[in-house]
Amino acid sequence: MRLSRYFLPILKENPREAEIVSHRLMLRAGMIRQQGQGSFSWLPLGKRVLDKVCQIIREEQNRAGALEILMPTIQSADLWRESGRYNDYGKEMLRIKDRQDRDMLYGPTNEEMVTEIFRAYVKSYKDLPLNLYHIQWKFRDEVRPRFGVMRSREFLMKDAYSFDLDFEGARSAYNRMFVSYLRTFTRMGLQAIPMRADTGPIGGDLSHEFIILADTGESQVFCHRDYLSLAVPGANTDFANDGEIADIVKTWTTPYAATDEMHDEAAWEKVPESDKVSARGIEVGHIFHFGEKYSKPMGAKVTGPDGKDHFASGGSYGIGPSRLVAAIIEASHDENGIIWPDAVAPFDIGLINMKVGDADCDRVSEELNAAFTAAGKDVLYDDTDQRPGGKFATADLIGLPWQVIVGPRGVAAGEVEIKNRRTGERETLPIADAKKRFGVAA
Amino acid sequence: MRLSRYFLPILKENPREAEIVSHRLMLRAGMIRQQGQGSFSWLPLGKRVLDKVCQIIREEQNRAGALEILMPTIQSADLWRESGRYNDYGKEMLRIKDRQDRDMLYGPTNEEMVTEIFRAYVKSYKDLPLNLYHIQWKFRDEVRPRFGVMRSREFLMKDAYSFDLDFEGARSAYNRMFVSYLRTFTRMGLQAIPMRADTGPIGGDLSHEFIILADTGESQVFCHRDYLSLAVPGANTDFANDGEIADIVKTWTTPYAATDEMHDEAAWEKVPESDKVSARGIEVGHIFHFGEKYSKPMGAKVTGPDGKDHFASGGSYGIGPSRLVAAIIEASHDENGIIWPDAVAPFDIGLINMKVGDADCDRVSEELNAAFTAAGKDVLYDDTDQRPGGKFATADLIGLPWQVIVGPRGVAAGEVEIKNRRTGERETLPIADAKKRFGVAA
Repeated sequence: MRLSRYFLPILKENPREAEIVSHRLMLRAGMIRQQGQGSFSWLPLGKRVLDKVCQIIREEQNRAGALEILMPTIQSADLWRESGRYNDYGKEMLRIKDRQDRDMLYGPTNEEMVTEIFRAYVKSYKDLPLNLYHIQWKFRDEVRPRFGVMRSREFLMKDAYSFDLDFEGARSAYNRMFVSYLRTFTRMGLQAIPMRADTGPIGGDLSHEFIILADTGESQVFCHRDYLSLAVPGANTDFANDGEIADIVKTWTTPYAATDEMHDEAAWEKVPESDKVSARGIEVGHIFHFGEKYSKPMGAKVTGPDGKDHFASGGSYGIGPSRLVAAIIEASHDENGIIWPDAVAPFDIGLINMKVGDADCDRVSEELNAAFTAAGKDVLYDDTDQRPGGKFATADLIGLPWQVIVGPRGVAAGEVEIKNRRTGERETLPIADAKKRFGVAA
Repeated sequence: MRLSRYFLPILKENPREAEIVSHRLMLRAGMIRQQGQGSFSWLPLGKRVLDKVCQIIREEQNRAGALEILMPTIQSADLWRESGRYNDYGKEMLRIKDRQDRDMLYGPTNEEMVTEIFRAYVKSYKDLPLNLYHIQWKFRDEVRPRFGVMRSREFLMKDAYSFDLDFEGARSAYNRMFVSYLRTFTRMGLQAIPMRADTGPIGGDLSHEFIILADTGESQVFCHRDYLSLAVPGANTDFANDGEIADIVKTWTTPYAATDEMHDEAAWEKVPESDKVSARGIEVGHIFHFGEKYSKPMGAKVTGPDGKDHFASGGSYGIGPSRLVAAIIEASHDENGIIWPDAVAPFDIGLINMKVGDADCDRVSEELNAAFTAAGKDVLYDDTDQRPGGKFATADLIGLPWQVIVGPRGVAAGEVEIKNRRTGERETLPIADAKKRFGVAA
């Protein structure tokens, strides 16, 4: 992609309304634009990151056996009256009347609707386990939306909902999502730690928040240092093997880990002082077993092998992709801008032509742009007539993993410079070697 | 994908509420579920088709130089007051009040919001041309939603919006979208004919609807037979070449073509009788030049090369992906079910194991499933214990382009049967040849 044909509205100044670094950097890097209170447009650079985040989530949901569907944003109030939540839900629910004065709402979550789908079609334990997920916009009318897309009113959510015959099945479904989440966040370059979360009236211990550590985190968290070096399950993990999956969950729930809310001072005391990690954290995912909470009032039953009807045992599993984009920035930036982990970077390479109009610089830049692109790399080619200083600042700000810098002196010597955004390391290489470095076949 | 682990709720009976064939088949094939008046969930099979349709649209928008963004579904009423449309828009607009009693709305379209984005960042003709598109859910509160996803209240739209310095630029932008649409629909296996549409108070001739011919079409259309054999521009079309693009548009607008609304009897008379095609049509896209309609009231100006301010000249370009899925079915089905064009088929191959539990059938089926999948094919492997008759009916109903049938007699002879869903042709092949047929390396 040529920057001259791209839409990348960089802001020179720090926007005053942005209180946290991710909000500031997303505005400055031209990733988002605020459209109203807690409402944002995703501009081209931001949209690319959001897509990459969603794609990783999708791949890992599919790997764990979940099936993708897509439910509408607008729901009928009657559905929520069935579960009893229409009246219970507070002012965060955006209530709407249509032209025929029917009560509707903008879905803040989808347990009712997915239970309705389940109830309509699934009648036998033979069709279980079932896990349906979707990635859809939601709306929660927060009193005080803030922190950009970290806490907006309209936000994107991946919600998965599992249905099983009994608690044993539901626990296995829960475990699969647990392991899927470990893989999901790791692939995005995040170190997420599962922490026990409140189960409220449901009880039991099947509720975990996945927390990443970041200095700017919203809450205090406590965990054993072991978490920082635990091996994350690989791509060959067998999600059909309940025992293998349960073992992974056990490994990842044994050392101490808790948010402020669930913190247990007595247990914390037992962690050796040198193993204590007390830090700020950001919640990036939440999984929750709720049993028959929706299936019972809504009559979602299946026939078991015993010939009797059983209310489905369920759970829900959320990740907010729009929020995640901000969380990744909170965890990965420096004073010059964003530092994207490779897997979610909007482009792999920022190709900087330092002297547009210089025949040699243009030729080498065009050649590298074509070669990298043909090798499957996403390239943002800065072919604008901005001065080099501005180009470098933009490249650092938008945080692509690699910069390839084509300048007149280097080109005269048959060389280009490569900069690693994360380490800041620079290297001068012959052009052919630079191509090889990024996978161009000789 | 194993059917035993998939969620494909086939309906045996024709749903009474479905008036048109696409609605009937989408319900029967388990693609969608109605959730309210004019509101549908997309179940796994439907979601796959919707994704493929969106991906083709996206690729062709990108090829034509448009840039993808994503605007929120909820908009502030104030934005629409700027253009004057808040009061003009009728009851189709879903009006909402938030908890602080602010007027909001569920976007029925996005001209205002995208103009606001443009106005905020673009100041010079040097940043033009610019075309921003998004694929997002919209809501129009129709009095009588019907025909399933063909005319629902909540529906998915691709909307592109172009911005140029002057009419000449805007016309080139319009032409690029025109050609992009020709390619888009052709890639989906549709023959879409551009037909002059009403330009209302804007005037001029830059408004076209893209219409596909289908017996069940909603409106009467008239066109010259030449359209049925015009060459569609290839993937190497140079969208940067305004002249080349304008020539294609000329070719595709010269023979007579009009919807009932714009029909000109006098011009129609001049078409030779044997070249007249009078048929039913379905609108699948609409492109429209509107000049300064939004830029003027909203003050979206850029500085021209003359140093003066100019209101941007704009156009909008819509395709409804959710509606398109239904339109494709209207154009491509038979009495047994859907017949997917290859490019939008939810799976490439339906692999049917006629005798699950038979060691040889299982072995060959597993082997083919693995081989086809490794060769990059999307396979739906029917490994259920349904009887063969039911499996064949399901395969025909969901309309995958190819069926590969593994039965005990064939397997004993080292053979499988291949069926082309569109032609109905069957062929018995040695297993190795069947693999080769679907791209498996020997």
